[in-house]
Amino acid sequence: MRESATRMRRLFNPTRIGIIGATETPGKVGRIVFDYLRRSSAELFPVNPKIQTILGYPVLPSTENLPEDLDLVVVTIGAAAAVEAAETCARKKAANIIIIAGGFGETGAEGRLLEERLKTLPAKYGSRILGPNSLGVFVPSAKLDTIFVEHGDAALAGGGGIAFITQSGSVGVESLGLASNTGFGLRAFVGIGNKADLDESDFLTWFGSDSGTDTLALYVESIEKGRLFLEQARGIARRKPLVLLKAGRTLAGASAASSHTGRLAGSDNVVSGALRQYGIQRAFDDEELCDAAKTLSMVKPAAGNRVAVITAAGGFGVMCTDYIDTPDRHAPLRMAVLSEKTKERIRFGTLPFASVHNPVDLTAGADDAMYLLALDALLADEGVDIVICVTFFAPPSITDMLSEKMAAVIRKAEKPVLVFTQYGPFTDTYLKNFYKSGVAGFSSLSRVVRAARFLVERSRNLRHLKEAPAAPFAPTADYQDIFSAWKQRLEVPGHANEWEAKLLMRSAGLPVPPGYLLSPRDPLPNVETLSAAGIAPPYAVKLCSARVLHKTDVGGVVLGVEAKDLHPVLESARRKFPGENLLIGSMLPIRGPEFIIGALKDPAFGAAIMVGVGGILTELYRDVSFRLAPCDPREVERMLMELTVAPILNGFRGSKADLAQLVAIIARFSEMAAVVVESGAQMDINPIIWNGESWFVLDAKVVL
Amino acid sequence: MRESATRMRRLFNPTRIGIIGATETPGKVGRIVFDYLRRSSAELFPVNPKIQTILGYPVLPSTENLPEDLDLVVVTIGAAAAVEAAETCARKKAANIIIIAGGFGETGAEGRLLEERLKTLPAKYGSRILGPNSLGVFVPSAKLDTIFVEHGDAALAGGGGIAFITQSGSVGVESLGLASNTGFGLRAFVGIGNKADLDESDFLTWFGSDSGTDTLALYVESIEKGRLFLEQARGIARRKPLVLLKAGRTLAGASAASSHTGRLAGSDNVVSGALRQYGIQRAFDDEELCDAAKTLSMVKPAAGNRVAVITAAGGFGVMCTDYIDTPDRHAPLRMAVLSEKTKERIRFGTLPFASVHNPVDLTAGADDAMYLLALDALLADEGVDIVICVTFFAPPSITDMLSEKMAAVIRKAEKPVLVFTQYGPFTDTYLKNFYKSGVAGFSSLSRVVRAARFLVERSRNLRHLKEAPAAPFAPTADYQDIFSAWKQRLEVPGHANEWEAKLLMRSAGLPVPPGYLLSPRDPLPNVETLSAAGIAPPYAVKLCSARVLHKTDVGGVVLGVEAKDLHPVLESARRKFPGENLLIGSMLPIRGPEFIIGALKDPAFGAAIMVGVGGILTELYRDVSFRLAPCDPREVERMLMELTVAPILNGFRGSKADLAQLVAIIARFSEMAAVVVESGAQMDINPIIWNGESWFVLDAKVVL
Repeated sequence: MRESATRMRRLFNPTRIGIIGATETPGKVGRIVFDYLRRSSAELFPVNPKIQTILGYPVLPSTENLPEDLDLVVVTIGAAAAVEAAETCARKKAANIIIIAGGFGETGAEGRLLEERLKTLPAKYGSRILGPNSLGVFVPSAKLDTIFVEHGDAALAGGGGIAFITQSGSVGVESLGLASNTGFGLRAFVGIGNKADLDESDFLTWFGSDSGTDTLALYVESIEKGRLFLEQARGIARRKPLVLLKAGRTLAGASAASSHTGRLAGSDNVVSGALRQYGIQRAFDDEELCDAAKTLSMVKPAAGNRVAVITAAGGFGVMCTDYIDTPDRHAPLRMAVLSEKTKERIRFGTLPFASVHNPVDLTAGADDAMYLLALDALLADEGVDIVICVTFFAPPSITDMLSEKMAAVIRKAEKPVLVFTQYGPFTDTYLKNFYKSGVAGFSSLSRVVRAARFLVERSRNLRHLKEAPAAPFAPTADYQDIFSAWKQRLEVPGHANEWEAKLLMRSAGLPVPPGYLLSPRDPLPNVETLSAAGIAPPYAVKLCSARVLHKTDVGGVVLGVEAKDLHPVLESARRKFPGENLLIGSMLPIRGPEFIIGALKDPAFGAAIMVGVGGILTELYRDVSFRLAPCDPREVERMLMELTVAPILNGFRGSKADLAQLVAIIARFSEMAAVVVESGAQMDINPIIWNGESWFVLDAKVVL
Repeated sequence: MRESATRMRRLFNPTRIGIIGATETPGKVGRIVFDYLRRSSAELFPVNPKIQTILGYPVLPSTENLPEDLDLVVVTIGAAAAVEAAETCARKKAANIIIIAGGFGETGAEGRLLEERLKTLPAKYGSRILGPNSLGVFVPSAKLDTIFVEHGDAALAGGGGIAFITQSGSVGVESLGLASNTGFGLRAFVGIGNKADLDESDFLTWFGSDSGTDTLALYVESIEKGRLFLEQARGIARRKPLVLLKAGRTLAGASAASSHTGRLAGSDNVVSGALRQYGIQRAFDDEELCDAAKTLSMVKPAAGNRVAVITAAGGFGVMCTDYIDTPDRHAPLRMAVLSEKTKERIRFGTLPFASVHNPVDLTAGADDAMYLLALDALLADEGVDIVICVTFFAPPSITDMLSEKMAAVIRKAEKPVLVFTQYGPFTDTYLKNFYKSGVAGFSSLSRVVRAARFLVERSRNLRHLKEAPAAPFAPTADYQDIFSAWKQRLEVPGHANEWEAKLLMRSAGLPVPPGYLLSPRDPLPNVETLSAAGIAPPYAVKLCSARVLHKTDVGGVVLGVEAKDLHPVLESARRKFPGENLLIGSMLPIRGPEFIIGALKDPAFGAAIMVGVGGILTELYRDVSFRLAPCDPREVERMLMELTVAPILNGFRGSKADLAQLVAIIARFSEMAAVVVESGAQMDINPIIWNGESWFVLDAKVVL
């Protein structure tokens, strides 16, 4: 680890750099990279067999001529030649080798072979490889830059606290370049490319401990070792905000899509649930990623989600309120209710026709002093967690000095303040000035409101991460044993009918109501027999076959059967489904909500569970929530509270069901799921119902 | 009308302009406006008692010295003096007077008096007044500009087809200024300010007929004469896209908020429903307004909502897909499924490791030719309605020439193409180049995808507007008569109990199941009596009081009463609610969905109806849809189809209810609502249920 950190330090602060393929030809990668590296204070060793000097520097004819033990070699030549050069550099003990060329694993079999050769070098020689197909690194504070395409480097030269790690060069530099236009504090940019050696995990480790890094932004398309990645990211998120953009969204495969849970999941909902579980923030595009990183790096944490808005144009206040009130994929916000004292202060110091309610509208007659007074009053209000300033510059009353005056207040404030401003062709300039004064500004209402959501998410995550159990999860039973024993007792090996699925649930301690399994050859039970099994009329009679997945669709369910009708119904069912088992149970009263609980295997993260509103509305509202399994009860409760229907668990409109009981059931289900779905099986409880006193598993399915 | 059009023509193409308060003092409104107006070819008549010349122009000492019958006078002085000047100009038959100063109705009683004086001038002298508190007009093609704050005028000088009408000067110029940075074709900008005379309706009329205007963008905070506005806007929307940003969102008032429907409405949902009904597109902030106007002005209509995406960076393709798949407040989109032929064409002309599925990923090895080939193939695919090009510039393979080459294809294409591009500090320049080539480009994925939604909305609206009935709505009954007669028969004048509410529904022809009203003094009915009234056991017994709004909450409902228990239940209910009526009905089987139907009065638009999913989930999912009343059956069907639960009306998962029957019921309800809520009353049906054969009004409420 120490060794690895030393090499990493040499990657980001090299004193001796080799450049394979350096050239004077303008526009060539080898020229652009060499030009950039000349700005650093490192000693440069350009290599090119065709020239003797480049811009006054002596050029080495061959990679073989490079000195031993360089801190960094940047290889700017094509794939096949780059591999040979890398092999030579590794032999010569270069600490780090960046390979810019593409044409490796991403292009097919031939490229994969080249990449395999690269992969052997770290173990063999100790050199670390960044790439191939990587833009390399950009570290403003060290004037280290290997990125040959436009990336806003001039505007980013001031540096900052954000480490930006990206698997895609394009997505990384394009978003960074755009963000640089309005101010963005970059600690370092790393393109990890094909990850032949160094990957996101190596850089998480490094920037997680780097004192110059205050925020991490990650763009990844594929995550191998998903759980390890999440655990590492969680460890860092306890200390620093970490925002992830995961774009390599794929469906969880055809097999998963065949189950109810799978259809509701894609694998993207699982990713969202997993990130929440691990306290990691998620962005959905490159603009969000940069906005989130900028906000979290610059702005103080929010104690809650109550937002106050100041504006000098009423319309912007109303539109801002609309965004605050409209839920999206990020944390919910609320409009703050201002105290009488606050309103009085604002009323006293502003125009008589100003609106002192939230959003505070200073009107077009506003001046600098009124803005500052209102900002001060809102910051002092205990009912306000975040302030959004909608700021204009309209001399003479509102002057160019306002931004500096506001920044002075904002820097000293204990609460977070975000700024929205637009000013035609000067918009970016004003935003950059705010940035230089330490204030995060945005030119669209949707973005400034979303920035507030990122702050709220971060505070929530921090609370969540503090209470998360440090100890590994201790299972309540040996579900591996339970599952194996259960599988061996199946009537049709490899296929479970409803009764058998329920037996598995029961053996995990889940509440399954009594049932009577009637085999095709068994005599028909009478009322007394059923009563002895705890089953009273009216009855529910169901087809119980491992071969039929949707028994309702084939007319395999008869409900509300009176005692006198039991035998005729059973006889009719036997005629309809010859050779099949039937399952007899009591009709259960349904007293409120019903839920679906499911489990599936995510390709990146493994076993996951889902909970959602049950019944016919499940697929229409897609009101579902996911977590990785196993999942402790506190996390299960959080998962339930994410559902839109959550209030019905807390007594909404007279409907009250036992939340703790449901939480315990789902937690146990999740423990079993961790075993069952990892073995390749799927399982659903659909629905679990509240009968007025307890939750009951009304139907269950296990597909092996 | 002719007269009005002539004046309006003189406002936008003045040949002789007076400027009251013109000055040489830099930074003053009178100086800035004068400077701008000097660029026009009009003859200028500056007025200022303190100076003799201004920048070489002779200055008139007094408004009295202005010539008669000027086309336009721009008044740049303070409120009180501006009114006097306007009065003089009106006497001197100025065709149009723009008053820039604020300090009128928006500031209180004194300002209101000044504004009243202005309001008298048009009728008295024929002059039209724009303002007060208006930034005036900006017409690039006429080099006419009275806007004294930064508004991107340099970039907008090229002109275009978008008429931008705004009630708020700030919101107007700030958004316009921002939009100008990436290209925006402006026909004219008008700030309507306080609307002392000319209002949005006058400018809708003008730009609706103006051959140079192809798209209208409107920002309004208050709409008076809401229905007239909608009808006028609909008339224009039949010919030209019209996008409305309505920010003056207010709750419908305390009285409305006391009803179920009112709580679900705000007045904002009503606005959205009304705009859909009238085929008008809605924007939710200034950025959306400008993006929508730009897109609709520049891009061809879309035949459907199937989008294909081309990218050279896989990640952007996946993120773009995510936005396409994620529903928002605008029209839904779908990812197109490409034909085999299309995939074959792309496979043939691109790299072997490119992805030929949608999103098409040309990979980082792409060049100009591959982009053009893929674009061509997607445009030729019958399964594609809209193409989004995610475009980068990475020489040498992808060159700066690509944008011009793509533009040539896009201009000739029959399908709409939108472009996304980012390029650090040069992003705006690239977008502006696209704009100049006739291509609509955006620098964020969310915005380019939203632009596609605007195109789809426009096509839908056009189809809808073509089929809308030209004739005025013919009511199916005289609901005014029905309502008056019903009110006179109420037991407690001004208060309706459930039975009476149901009687009103029944008299409008709505399906109300039989009921037996039991007064406190009546003898208890026996089974035969009830049977004669069409009521069979098991019974439902309900408290029926105009005083109790929520009978369930007070224990006023007993369900499933067997014949033998009828009298005990009735006696117990009489003891619990002495002096109150009881209502006896049959228990009705519920076979599927239940809905709530409500009516309320919107402050701007009058009578409106709501339909939503009923039961406990109504308030949690807020799955509701609004329209203005009355509402014809086709529009009611559209309203129902907007609900997330709509599929259950079309046989989703075996649940099938009669859609046409429900539509007819809601249409009739809407006709009655147009009368009832306009009289100040509210009414709800909650729920209406499907019993397997018909829809039935299970409960109804009328609050007078």
